[in-house]
Amino acid sequence: MIAIVGLGVIGGSYAMALRRAGYDQVCAIDQDEQTLEKALAMDLICAGSTHGRQLLRQADLTILSIYPHSVAGFLREHASDFKPGSVITDATGVKSELARQIPDILPPDVDFVMGHPMAGREKKGLDFASDRVFQGANYILTPTARNREENLKKVEKLALELGFRRVERITPEQHDEIIAFTSQLPHALAVALINSDKEGRDTSRFIGDSYRDLTRIANINAELWSELFLQNRAYLLEAIEGFEAQLDILKEALRGQDRETLVERFEESSRRRSAMN
Amino acid sequence: MIAIVGLGVIGGSYAMALRRAGYDQVCAIDQDEQTLEKALAMDLICAGSTHGRQLLRQADLTILSIYPHSVAGFLREHASDFKPGSVITDATGVKSELARQIPDILPPDVDFVMGHPMAGREKKGLDFASDRVFQGANYILTPTARNREENLKKVEKLALELGFRRVERITPEQHDEIIAFTSQLPHALAVALINSDKEGRDTSRFIGDSYRDLTRIANINAELWSELFLQNRAYLLEAIEGFEAQLDILKEALRGQDRETLVERFEESSRRRSAMN
Repeated sequence: MIAIVGLGVIGGSYAMALRRAGYDQVCAIDQDEQTLEKALAMDLICAGSTHGRQLLRQADLTILSIYPHSVAGFLREHASDFKPGSVITDATGVKSELARQIPDILPPDVDFVMGHPMAGREKKGLDFASDRVFQGANYILTPTARNREENLKKVEKLALELGFRRVERITPEQHDEIIAFTSQLPHALAVALINSDKEGRDTSRFIGDSYRDLTRIANINAELWSELFLQNRAYLLEAIEGFEAQLDILKEALRGQDRETLVERFEESSRRRSAMN
Repeated sequence: MIAIVGLGVIGGSYAMALRRAGYDQVCAIDQDEQTLEKALAMDLICAGSTHGRQLLRQADLTILSIYPHSVAGFLREHASDFKPGSVITDATGVKSELARQIPDILPPDVDFVMGHPMAGREKKGLDFASDRVFQGANYILTPTARNREENLKKVEKLALELGFRRVERITPEQHDEIIAFTSQLPHALAVALINSDKEGRDTSRFIGDSYRDLTRIANINAELWSELFLQNRAYLLEAIEGFEAQLDILKEALRGQDRETLVERFEESSRRRSAMN
């Protein structure tokens, strides 16, 4: 059996994608009874509980899709409930801190394989879950010395079954550094962009696709993202500073009417974007 | 007859959209003979010329879709060629400088109605033109005291026929100020973002939709955008500074581990994005 902890937009998407991939023994643990009832009615899960001790004891795989700050607490509370030999994985967007906490919490025969499905949504809750969000997306595993290779392979295989395009393995620190750049920095830029709009000029009438694209993720889950930002603040500040250095080059070129530098920077960005796959 | 000057991606899209809207008397002036031949073969235009004196004399409406720096020069060269009583419009992304130049160039019986179809593409050339790019997009008119109301209405009516969702009228200065924010600033951010990536870490393996969305427009026509940036540098620098002030708030909150400010900024950005239409 597979247990999903937290039936929000990500947990719900896991439930749907598992069902789609042919898994019919999926249960869920959630604080909200109505959510569990809805998931049962939708035939997404075969059992649900607000406590979950019994469900965890039967689960060969537990997928945590709860807020980052709740992960360690949940593991601590349920350390003795996990089925011996079972695997736990998560969907948290920051890994270094978690990697430091795990060894002290879990018994040696329970393996926590840290995973990051790169498929966020702006909206919260089961109602916005979709079995399509993982299709073609990237999945990152951040193995530690504590993980058994067979368990890493198990999580990897499941990710591919659920529709992820590729699974990469990097260290928790590498993960946090690159995620600061590819995920948290874009969110910081989108938020700062839309918040720098002068109010009262009815901007919507004067936008094209570029502004729409760049502000889409400014509609953000404030609770979740403030946690992710703070847990990863050192790497994120570094990423922001790297970005600012590039923006300064453009500013200086504007001030100095330096067309050549602008053209050179634009050609470089075009080259990089075209090479992206 | 309608004359299109410059059969690039925008001029070509005009030709297609005009054909789609039922206009069959459309001709084109372009420096490249092969482009004209291709457009004739595609039945997009009924006549083409690399010089255009004769075509301009027959055109009741001339649509300029050439690079910003070429507009004044083209008008000067052809000032006596335009049909008396005819209307000229353009697709240029910056207006104040143009508004200052026009009165000295054109004879009084030729009316230049400045327009900005907010539907750019990354790619250059007729091959990337599409009669769909204008569908549902915004169109901005920047009238001057020199324009006759009937001619403004003519260009407005045509924009709606070609599929634009709404046409707004603002002054050239208002246009340049808001476009610096909604169009040029997003391009500057996208370019600075992708150029601040550390090379050699194969970033593509670790991205989600957010990075993809925020860098799409980093693939940019370097010639065109360096012109637009420089022509609008004062307003663009102002927009960049407004953005930086907001980014600084996020940086300070990260440094001070100030969760409340992050949540507040994220809630504000979410509110603004949700209100956008």
